[in-house]
Amino acid sequence: MNFKIYIPEKIKNKHQQAAVKEYEKRLSRYCKIKTIIYKDETELEKLPSKTYKIRITPQGDTITSEALADKINHLGVTGKSDVTFIIHDSIDSNEILALSKMDLSVGMTTTVLYEQIYRGFRINNNEPYHK
Amino acid sequence: MNFKIYIPEKIKNKHQQAAVKEYEKRLSRYCKIKTIIYKDETELEKLPSKTYKIRITPQGDTITSEALADKINHLGVTGKSDVTFIIHDSIDSNEILALSKMDLSVGMTTTVLYEQIYRGFRINNNEPYHK
Repeated sequence: MNFKIYIPEKIKNKHQQAAVKEYEKRLSRYCKIKTIIYKDETELEKLPSKTYKIRITPQGDTITSEALADKINHLGVTGKSDVTFIIHDSIDSNEILALSKMDLSVGMTTTVLYEQIYRGFRINNNEPYHK
Repeated sequence: MNFKIYIPEKIKNKHQQAAVKEYEKRLSRYCKIKTIIYKDETELEKLPSKTYKIRITPQGDTITSEALADKINHLGVTGKSDVTFIIHDSIDSNEILALSKMDLSVGMTTTVLYEQIYRGFRINNNEPYHK
């Protein structure tokens, strides 16, 4: 699968930068994944229609780790292997999810999202989850 | 105020260790806060009755950052200035909150909790929130 995570600004916190880098490395076994900083909404509106868009905002639907793992698996087996997560408050998307009802910084949101995608692949592969 | 965060195991991830340390430093302006690793449930059952216990688990009630800020403020002004957060699945507590419906590692849960307490004090003091 191929994941892109669109974020509105550079992650400034160095611990979060390092955490994301580490999850990227761990995830390389399972998928392609990268973070892209978007400049404006026009850029998001131009995303290819074939990509499955999941917007991340505290106003979205909460989801368990198991449900996210199921979703990733389902998208993969139904040919929607190109998935774009977008941290944004209002852009159009296929669905809207909340990692938390709390406002997390962009860096924290990205870190949690990477952790959950990694956890999802571990769950789907019946592999133990290491921190 | 005086916060204690009881966690079931040492945080192994070095990025999260560093993040918690940084939030501890930032929070020192506003409160006392420390993390304690508990050995077993007996230790949790022996917590002083005067401390206000908030158990953290994905099965708890979700809460917004603003509501957590309000709660911290309310506890402070009603004389419950000693607050204990406990990462545990079943121990008795005054209330049960979820940072996320997803399973976060102990290190991630602790990091998000520190970020949210810090954010809470920034909100309550009408200070801008920096990441």
